[in-house]
Amino acid sequence: MKEYFMNEALKEARRALIMKEVPVGAVIVKDGRVISRAHNLKETLSDPTAHAEILAIRSACENLNNWRLNGCEMYVTLEPCAMCASAIAQARISKLCIGTFDPTAGACGSVIDLLGTNSLNYCVPVEWMYNEESSIILKEFFKMKRQ
Amino acid sequence: MKEYFMNEALKEARRALIMKEVPVGAVIVKDGRVISRAHNLKETLSDPTAHAEILAIRSACENLNNWRLNGCEMYVTLEPCAMCASAIAQARISKLCIGTFDPTAGACGSVIDLLGTNSLNYCVPVEWMYNEESSIILKEFFKMKRQ
Repeated sequence: MKEYFMNEALKEARRALIMKEVPVGAVIVKDGRVISRAHNLKETLSDPTAHAEILAIRSACENLNNWRLNGCEMYVTLEPCAMCASAIAQARISKLCIGTFDPTAGACGSVIDLLGTNSLNYCVPVEWMYNEESSIILKEFFKMKRQ
Repeated sequence: MKEYFMNEALKEARRALIMKEVPVGAVIVKDGRVISRAHNLKETLSDPTAHAEILAIRSACENLNNWRLNGCEMYVTLEPCAMCASAIAQARISKLCIGTFDPTAGACGSVIDLLGTNSLNYCVPVEWMYNEESSIILKEFFKMKRQ
């Protein structure tokens, strides 16, 4: 099932790529069912907070009418930045599955680790899925940008 | 002028207090003019990302039709958390003025420092205003909650 949900997140990332957005996608799963899905829309919405993770969290909370996402898992194609990692923790997401790491801005261990330490009063278990496609789609995007 | 803008942020915090939200307010200023203002609406909107800073950023970007807030200053009554500090940096806000520190979750020096180091590829100059009212209104809120 984990691969299935990461593939759903990848479908979102591909939608972002078509829109010339940095291709990152996320889904939130509760009781084995996808309850929200989103991709990066920063340029399209002119909103610096419109990362896949933030949009997926806002949509899940709207669906559940609750800001607490206890018992929910997030699958995201790229390691979250500090904004998103903190939002994931504050939304009380129970588990985070990450497709690939972000050596430039990743806040789940690559540059800093906001979720693994208890300094901010929350910890979220992280599983690294080393999903090759998550990484390839980003490389494609940046290659396209340079052309 | 700095005191005037912090007072405008405080007016927002007071609106949050009336709504039984944690009383934090923020305004964004460009060319000496307030271009957006917001207060915490996390409970009201059932949205864990609906902190004053995030809402003020989204509103300013909508007004300017641009996700880049270069040349803008934010005045916020309480030290931003990691989510908000990272959002402030990613929105390219040029300066951040903070009313009071947050020893439990502050990400501008109190618990961690996301804006003063270059580890995440951005720095935002921070000015601490040590505004007594910013702190008093929070104490009032938590006293009210305990009753």
